[in-house]
Amino acid sequence: MAVTMHVCVTCRGQDVGGEDRETAPRAGRRLHDALADAQRREGGPPRFRIVEVECLSNCNRGCSVALSGPGRWTYVYGDLSPALVDELLAGAARYAVTADGLVPWRERPTIFRKGVIARIPPAPKPV
Amino acid sequence: MAVTMHVCVTCRGQDVGGEDRETAPRAGRRLHDALADAQRREGGPPRFRIVEVECLSNCNRGCSVALSGPGRWTYVYGDLSPALVDELLAGAARYAVTADGLVPWRERPTIFRKGVIARIPPAPKPV
Repeated sequence: MAVTMHVCVTCRGQDVGGEDRETAPRAGRRLHDALADAQRREGGPPRFRIVEVECLSNCNRGCSVALSGPGRWTYVYGDLSPALVDELLAGAARYAVTADGLVPWRERPTIFRKGVIARIPPAPKPV
Repeated sequence: MAVTMHVCVTCRGQDVGGEDRETAPRAGRRLHDALADAQRREGGPPRFRIVEVECLSNCNRGCSVALSGPGRWTYVYGDLSPALVDELLAGAARYAVTADGLVPWRERPTIFRKGVIARIPPAPKPV
């Protein structure tokens, strides 16, 4: 299980509005918990680790997640919401079976095609 | 030299305009080459590696660089230009002497405070 999905739990994107805004769980927290619940319901060994994080510095386009793993390109995605759990799990599972993190364009979920914030190459080989 | 600065050489942000736009080197290429030249001029062993990359998926806010290293938070910065070489080298040098990639806010160059696109935690410890 070398792949990690970091989920920002402080993102306010898609927060509930009105009087409940300050007391309700933040959108990022709800997204994280929904992902973890869904992964548990899948049963079997998880294909990647879901880890919460405070702030991925993508506050303007939250909710946000990052996919990373040894030897792989890292991807940061934004414009997400707790309603997108199924697409996120499917996209991360596809990422997890690559060797280098590069999923062919046509196999990426729409939320990954449209919501990419940045990508970072794996560490270069030592010289 | 565990730290890498990836520089996107395909960024068009701050490209020259007019008739030269298609023939002149792209802004990202000029930024990369200016950084590499400046690092060479500093002499002594370099404090981090400068590596070119095609596209960090931050096209709307280029030029773009990413700072990463083992055990460190990764940072992606945008809104850069070839004129910012000195600030970039100073900021990366400060990052390179941290153990975890976290530079205190007041010690970050203004271009890093304002231009952060995303940050990603280091890989979690194996469980």
